[in-house]
Amino acid sequence: MIDRLVIIGVGLIGGSLSLALKQAGAVGHVVGCGRDQANLEKGVELGVIDSYQMSIRDAVKDADIVVLAVPLGAMRSVFEQIAGGLTDQTVITDAGSAKASVVKVAIECLGDRVGQFVPGHPIAGTEKSGVEAGFSSLYTNKRVILTPVDSTDQAAVNIIDKMWRQCGASIEYLSVQHHDKVLAATSHLPHMLAYALVNFLSGLNEHDEIFKYAAGGFRDFTRIASSDPVMWRDVCISNGDALLRLIEQYKDELDQVSAAIRNQDAEHLLELFGNAKTERDSLVGNC
Amino acid sequence: MIDRLVIIGVGLIGGSLSLALKQAGAVGHVVGCGRDQANLEKGVELGVIDSYQMSIRDAVKDADIVVLAVPLGAMRSVFEQIAGGLTDQTVITDAGSAKASVVKVAIECLGDRVGQFVPGHPIAGTEKSGVEAGFSSLYTNKRVILTPVDSTDQAAVNIIDKMWRQCGASIEYLSVQHHDKVLAATSHLPHMLAYALVNFLSGLNEHDEIFKYAAGGFRDFTRIASSDPVMWRDVCISNGDALLRLIEQYKDELDQVSAAIRNQDAEHLLELFGNAKTERDSLVGNC
Repeated sequence: MIDRLVIIGVGLIGGSLSLALKQAGAVGHVVGCGRDQANLEKGVELGVIDSYQMSIRDAVKDADIVVLAVPLGAMRSVFEQIAGGLTDQTVITDAGSAKASVVKVAIECLGDRVGQFVPGHPIAGTEKSGVEAGFSSLYTNKRVILTPVDSTDQAAVNIIDKMWRQCGASIEYLSVQHHDKVLAATSHLPHMLAYALVNFLSGLNEHDEIFKYAAGGFRDFTRIASSDPVMWRDVCISNGDALLRLIEQYKDELDQVSAAIRNQDAEHLLELFGNAKTERDSLVGNC
Repeated sequence: MIDRLVIIGVGLIGGSLSLALKQAGAVGHVVGCGRDQANLEKGVELGVIDSYQMSIRDAVKDADIVVLAVPLGAMRSVFEQIAGGLTDQTVITDAGSAKASVVKVAIECLGDRVGQFVPGHPIAGTEKSGVEAGFSSLYTNKRVILTPVDSTDQAAVNIIDKMWRQCGASIEYLSVQHHDKVLAATSHLPHMLAYALVNFLSGLNEHDEIFKYAAGGFRDFTRIASSDPVMWRDVCISNGDALLRLIEQYKDELDQVSAAIRNQDAEHLLELFGNAKTERDSLVGNC
């Protein structure tokens, strides 16, 4: 049982974590922290958190676990504020989509206490954001990646591992660098492609008609372009190098498709699309 | 009431049309045609069609409406076969995703009877294909675009207009050229991007892990990469010029994103993603 959980950033990710732990009977009291008091009040009203505090430093003083569920760009400020309030027993984790930048900031801000910080990333979410978007089953049968470093306390890792399992998630361990490379491909790149597509189409003359004749495929394809812009701005800043390489390589792949279309190379087109279908059907499931 | 409907190509599109008309009580007897006898037998077994014929020329002889629901690359061969079996009363339509190439073939094959052909395109589908994938509500609240040309009989247009309305669809009229330009942007380009993404990721070293850590966003984004490769090969051949222009322009849009990432231009990134989110939320609905 986690007696006192402090969630900094009570949105989709932080709110769903609280709801999942409450549903599992795995947490006593959940304190929300954040800059937006109205949001925190709504969190209490919705039963997502039990109480809130505006001072992060005060809130973390008696916490067993502190979860940072804020955009990557807000991590430094939050780590600076929690640093003064930690005891030996406090375990800290985060939910950032890129890990190298968070680990760097944690080392700089936490000093000797950096071993109490377990870098994490739940591979779950929707395009919605905000406390109203949270729901208790968000992490059920999802993966959470933890990326402890050499200095991370094993006891702290075990506590965070257990916390996510109690939400119904399975846990995977990756190195920080490996995580950032894989997620750039599987998550960060697709978000860039979707944002770019919507912006591109909205700039065309046929703008209104394009969206009018959008079918289900288009809706699904662009769903992630409704994701939180602040979060994705920060991902781009935090994991920019990996992302830039992938965008360039992806353009080369598009050039291959263009060449096949230009040459009316029916056989090559069929091969390209057939390969993609086979991969997608077998690896993601035909869902 | 359509007494006798002939569907050439009994897959997702043709099969769903038959099921929808049957459910609406709008059709008497539905004859399926195609090259794959086992598929047609399955169509009868599933109740999608009432009977089948292997000879297209024979099948169309007593038809009120003939629907061509075959890949674009098969249109010429089918038009050649139906040409000899038509009477003055037969109305023909198709469901091809690009219209200029179909109209061209129809003019060449049907001669004086080209007025009886109403070019059409239901904006509906799933990534599934085949007769088993058909369902009667596929066209409910969907749009069907008709692109009659100067020579098209108005009476024929009215018959096809009514047929699709009976399936629950609404009808829009566009010129052939306009249709092909708009659909290249809203449908053909996204399919190319999704196919290219899956192929690109499957070629990376981290291949297995990339698909392992794929979350819901990735699944949705790549769903259309499970679409029928033959259909999309033919779309590329039929609407290649429009598609090539769009792919080049889209690459320019990606370059803008890359430049903002490279320059760590947080403000510009936030603007790009914010604009896309606003567009997508307002025009497609936040669904």
